[in-house]
Amino acid sequence: MEKVFASIITIGDELLIGQVVDTNSAWMAQELNKIGITVKHRVAVGDVWEDIWQALDEESKQASIILITGGLGPTADDITKPLLCNYFGGKMIVHQPTLDHVTHIFENILKRPMIERNAKQAEVPDVCTVLMNERGTAPGMLFKKEGKIFVSLPGVPHEMKWIMSNHVLPLIPQIFTTGFIEHRTLLTAGIGESFLAEMIIKEETALPAHIKLAYLPNYGMVRLRLTAFGEDKNKLETELNHHFDQLKKAVAVYLVIDEDIPLELAVGKLLKEKGCTVATAESCTGGYIAHLLTSHAGSSAYFTGSVISYDNAIKERVLHVSKQTLETVGAVSESTVQQMAKSVLSIMQTDYAIAVSGIMGPDGGTAEKPVGMVWVGIADKNRVITKQFNFRFDRRRNIELTANNALNLLRSFIVDNA
Amino acid sequence: MEKVFASIITIGDELLIGQVVDTNSAWMAQELNKIGITVKHRVAVGDVWEDIWQALDEESKQASIILITGGLGPTADDITKPLLCNYFGGKMIVHQPTLDHVTHIFENILKRPMIERNAKQAEVPDVCTVLMNERGTAPGMLFKKEGKIFVSLPGVPHEMKWIMSNHVLPLIPQIFTTGFIEHRTLLTAGIGESFLAEMIIKEETALPAHIKLAYLPNYGMVRLRLTAFGEDKNKLETELNHHFDQLKKAVAVYLVIDEDIPLELAVGKLLKEKGCTVATAESCTGGYIAHLLTSHAGSSAYFTGSVISYDNAIKERVLHVSKQTLETVGAVSESTVQQMAKSVLSIMQTDYAIAVSGIMGPDGGTAEKPVGMVWVGIADKNRVITKQFNFRFDRRRNIELTANNALNLLRSFIVDNA
Repeated sequence: MEKVFASIITIGDELLIGQVVDTNSAWMAQELNKIGITVKHRVAVGDVWEDIWQALDEESKQASIILITGGLGPTADDITKPLLCNYFGGKMIVHQPTLDHVTHIFENILKRPMIERNAKQAEVPDVCTVLMNERGTAPGMLFKKEGKIFVSLPGVPHEMKWIMSNHVLPLIPQIFTTGFIEHRTLLTAGIGESFLAEMIIKEETALPAHIKLAYLPNYGMVRLRLTAFGEDKNKLETELNHHFDQLKKAVAVYLVIDEDIPLELAVGKLLKEKGCTVATAESCTGGYIAHLLTSHAGSSAYFTGSVISYDNAIKERVLHVSKQTLETVGAVSESTVQQMAKSVLSIMQTDYAIAVSGIMGPDGGTAEKPVGMVWVGIADKNRVITKQFNFRFDRRRNIELTANNALNLLRSFIVDNA
Repeated sequence: MEKVFASIITIGDELLIGQVVDTNSAWMAQELNKIGITVKHRVAVGDVWEDIWQALDEESKQASIILITGGLGPTADDITKPLLCNYFGGKMIVHQPTLDHVTHIFENILKRPMIERNAKQAEVPDVCTVLMNERGTAPGMLFKKEGKIFVSLPGVPHEMKWIMSNHVLPLIPQIFTTGFIEHRTLLTAGIGESFLAEMIIKEETALPAHIKLAYLPNYGMVRLRLTAFGEDKNKLETELNHHFDQLKKAVAVYLVIDEDIPLELAVGKLLKEKGCTVATAESCTGGYIAHLLTSHAGSSAYFTGSVISYDNAIKERVLHVSKQTLETVGAVSESTVQQMAKSVLSIMQTDYAIAVSGIMGPDGGTAEKPVGMVWVGIADKNRVITKQFNFRFDRRRNIELTANNALNLLRSFIVDNA
């Protein structure tokens, strides 16, 4: 069986001048992978007629499925629709169901008068199949040419996702016969990529040609991903599970979880299993740990609340860190995070607490306490543990590293206490 | 003067299966733009020999500067370096300064024994100029071919940024003569893209051919960007400033700020100018507003702290929301956010407070209070204002929209009170 390849073309000057980070492509690639489609290429081009045209020509040489996002908005910088009409040799016509839908949105939801520009969104090339967009005014469009499909989607993420999920992904298996792609991912913490590689030489060498191993380092953690491609789903899964088990055994000491989920969700699952709750007392992370924990549905089962004590006065007045501690050893100290952790545990009446205090930069460092120095405290009702970290470099990275290491320290604390 | 074009090639299977979102390209594009280089194309390919080779061939047809990120790690899935060696017809040699640097990192910073794999990172093709990487072990490499330059950089963001800033960006103006690219960006809130477009028809029509207008909608806000290209920097700036002023006047009612900065930083600047402070009481956003405010250096000048009351017990016990309110009108109500805002203002002793409570989904909605329903309260010592929002769709989007709208409501509150 031949692999079926897809290409993703993203249109918009904002991507080329770096004003917007492209998150659509990652989501699209994940979803295509699940149905056995291999994304071979992703390309971003500006709002330039010749460049878009050329991208369509080039990508259709490499792939059978060409997904195009962006360039469908109501404003004048968008040229995608007339270009597609031209490229596939059609003429523009009004698509009545889309016009009704756009009218409905303006009359009943936005409750604003519809203007000419909005009505224009219901015009489509007569050579496309319209993919209705329940989430917005710009419809998706499907074109077929020489056994390949071209799909044009709006760039607004939730609109694109809705059309993909409801129209495009169900359609692909009806047109193309694909093999199976399966992934297994595990998350490690506390070990660098190269040492991990040494540790799993035997397991890596034992992999057959159709199973690939990838190392994905990210903020103090490394993900290992096995990807297998084949025709017999059952055989593939058995084989993949075997190699994944071997890999898990080899990295057991550093294994956080054997799923492709973020660390905060792994910690959340652990808390939920135990019926336990957590609170945070955050200084330098400014609420980022709480945000990570609450960015997942169902987090109210284990996350109770936080005190963010960015100002030292709040550490003292709300979290009862002693004036003496703050005056002698300072806010970035073992004693401070111990007191913060114990206080927030008591204020929030939770089973566990995380406390962090540090210097994220770029300013505020001293010779004694340089940028990147962080103290983390973890408490339950019986004890408090602390750990000092020394990160380097930029603020965003320091905040990420602090949050991940604090969450991983809580995880170890819970597991060791079990 | 001819435009100088760049292409960015991103290497790694993790980008094609959607496991990682590419943030490097956006940063690179921004920096290239500042020195007058136009990014024409961005392409992502997997760890596949032929695909990388072909991308090098293709991109060098379109651009004079080809930047390549990723594929330089110490592990076995990385094939970029041998490929480049082959592509440019060199042989691998040990680069002594890099070997010394890698050895230094292991001996003095990581304090771990160096293994063969790490030493390998000091091997480079003899046909490249090595760009030392002070931030990590994988060096950057510069190749020249037929008047074009090819630069290979590690994919780790802070390493890539360091090499770009210290080697690549200073070098480009020495090799290429570029025109000037200038951007002006303003941020609006509270008006949709199509209505904004109607509002500025006159200003848009008046733009000369070398100044382009783009609409960049994002979570309830729209950025407008003017981009001008030319040879005479002074003339270009005068012209661009004139058109930007016209645009600002036309959208004045909805204008948040006339800079390309995020909303939370615009709010931060406003607070700092007035010498005022803010605190947040967050339920449904779980610390995200505090995180946004504190993600910028210098935020301690205006951000004091937060109480995150995810659990209703915390709303009652810590934020003193009355039991009666919670039992009768519930946690997602005008009265609750009024009390939360007043309490946190008093606890944190700030000039302003933001309070939010809502249902972010996917679960927890009812007929009366559906997913996406949010109450926001803003308080100072004299008054509290509230506003109800009804967002739709997914959790992440609802959290983003809530945070942006709450920050914008605070901004209006401060401006109106001035």
